[in-house]
Amino acid sequence: MKVSVLYGPRDVRFEERDDPKIIKPTDAIIKISATCVCGSDLWPYRGLNPITQPTPMGHEYCGVVEEVGSDVRSVKPGQFVIGSFFVSDNTCPHCQAGYQTSCQNRELIPGAQAPYLRVPLADGTLVPTPELPSKDMLPSLLTLSDVMGTGWFAADAANVKPGKTVVVVGDGAVGLLGVLSAKQMGAHRIIAMSRNPARQKLAKEFGATDIVTERSDEGVARIKEMTNGIGADSVLECVGTQESMMQAFRITRPGGHMGFVGVPHGVVLNGQDLFFAFAHIHLHGGPAPVRRYLPDLIKLVWNGKIDPGKVFDLTLPLDQVAEGYRAMDERRAIKTLLRP
Amino acid sequence: MKVSVLYGPRDVRFEERDDPKIIKPTDAIIKISATCVCGSDLWPYRGLNPITQPTPMGHEYCGVVEEVGSDVRSVKPGQFVIGSFFVSDNTCPHCQAGYQTSCQNRELIPGAQAPYLRVPLADGTLVPTPELPSKDMLPSLLTLSDVMGTGWFAADAANVKPGKTVVVVGDGAVGLLGVLSAKQMGAHRIIAMSRNPARQKLAKEFGATDIVTERSDEGVARIKEMTNGIGADSVLECVGTQESMMQAFRITRPGGHMGFVGVPHGVVLNGQDLFFAFAHIHLHGGPAPVRRYLPDLIKLVWNGKIDPGKVFDLTLPLDQVAEGYRAMDERRAIKTLLRP
Repeated sequence: MKVSVLYGPRDVRFEERDDPKIIKPTDAIIKISATCVCGSDLWPYRGLNPITQPTPMGHEYCGVVEEVGSDVRSVKPGQFVIGSFFVSDNTCPHCQAGYQTSCQNRELIPGAQAPYLRVPLADGTLVPTPELPSKDMLPSLLTLSDVMGTGWFAADAANVKPGKTVVVVGDGAVGLLGVLSAKQMGAHRIIAMSRNPARQKLAKEFGATDIVTERSDEGVARIKEMTNGIGADSVLECVGTQESMMQAFRITRPGGHMGFVGVPHGVVLNGQDLFFAFAHIHLHGGPAPVRRYLPDLIKLVWNGKIDPGKVFDLTLPLDQVAEGYRAMDERRAIKTLLRP
Repeated sequence: MKVSVLYGPRDVRFEERDDPKIIKPTDAIIKISATCVCGSDLWPYRGLNPITQPTPMGHEYCGVVEEVGSDVRSVKPGQFVIGSFFVSDNTCPHCQAGYQTSCQNRELIPGAQAPYLRVPLADGTLVPTPELPSKDMLPSLLTLSDVMGTGWFAADAANVKPGKTVVVVGDGAVGLLGVLSAKQMGAHRIIAMSRNPARQKLAKEFGATDIVTERSDEGVARIKEMTNGIGADSVLECVGTQESMMQAFRITRPGGHMGFVGVPHGVVLNGQDLFFAFAHIHLHGGPAPVRRYLPDLIKLVWNGKIDPGKVFDLTLPLDQVAEGYRAMDERRAIKTLLRP
């Protein structure tokens, strides 16, 4: 089969690899229906995470079970399944606490930008849909593998509740789905920080009540002005830079909650600032435990309550994966869906 | 009157200052029954916070109302009152959210190591006891002004609940009262990290079920061993150094809660560590909103349910304040009570 492989900065190739095989009795092989490029794939693509050897890319996937190992009980060949970007046993104490991305046996899904994928710990990782989905539903189901679950976790970690005022920092796919999540959770006011007209439009479609284009000091002043000087109840940090983290801290009210899901790059927090300047902010984040949310989010998509697949504004055949990365890198596309 | 004044590192003097007067109609003057030296007073005493001018010291107090301004409604002369180390209006949005130490009109109490004290925003700051307390009750009531409220906030911020496993990092007065708070909140297991026999003893009296003397890697390994490799549900960080913060992060389970109340000095947190190494830890802290807890904690002391005054193992007349600082600096005393 041919798969996506990163060789170095901005050098994604589509090349031959062996088909995956069952290695352990807890594995499953799935035939991928749709996969995509993640915002976090852009960090190594841009050379910000070093690449020491050619690396198969992609960790978002959904598809049909092709084969299962002898110990697999909860999924069977022919079922359509979705799984998290980290595999999990779903039985260890961290999984039981709802943090499957901290599973004691977790492994990162490797190389999902491919026609076939081996998924370890299939029973703990994969969740089947009620039936085979229609083709229209594929994009939305695919988002549940990472980006939608991550937006949902950002909102959950930021304690979004009915009636709350929410700010989303970051207008990438995760931020936009953070808006959608906040809407589902009943937020009263959802302020999206974005300067990009296409993304502003989608944010509004997903439920944003206000758009703020200012950043840094001006952005902080604008949010303070909109909240009577108080700050927001819930802030979703969906970028991961020093600037975006500071933005998020500065607009969260004392006693408010900040959920951070942008993978931090070069972020340093000063302890005294955390204690005094950003006092009393509840902080929670990390790799989203999307496995926890999968059953409920599948229901929401299945019943047509949410349509997170709208974040895909570019669809390409898998062999054009390099263009998929380029389009996102240049911010021509919010998110690229790839069809094997 | 004569008060405690810090001139520079390890130079506390007892010298004449004007008696305080009502300046604003929302002020009260109280005659101090007992005051004390705070762990946070040791930072400037040790030269770790710069002193640019002679500074009246102390912010923990309780006593009898002597006089009130014309706008004061909730306390009256003759009442015994306790207040927080930050004054608050108790009406602004941050106060209403329970974060009175983030009050939009907050001020730090200055110079409570004195016979008399002016308390601004008396209505929002001071809470009276049901009657005049007995002399025996003074030490415990005094702790509610800061140290007990801070230990309570540490436990509350760390989400201590019945049945939980709790670790307290720091065996100063705050840490010890964090143990007492965790016990009151129904924790199943309370592990105090301490190497000092007197403090270990008090920790056990307050409810610690285990003592861990190891630190750093050994301390982490010991806690992991005691929790089946999982880590603690709730960790109270009651020191504020880089080492103690790292200790606290490393022993909190994914999905667990860390409450931090030690004023950070030289603490720097790496964003990637927060995201990956310490993933999924709920973080909450800052200056304790002791005003929120005062009514309930007064009841607990009044009804003999808790005796936090035990942290005072040295009582001196106020004119010996310099010795009070020395004894704490040299760790001869856990906490010094001063009687004007």
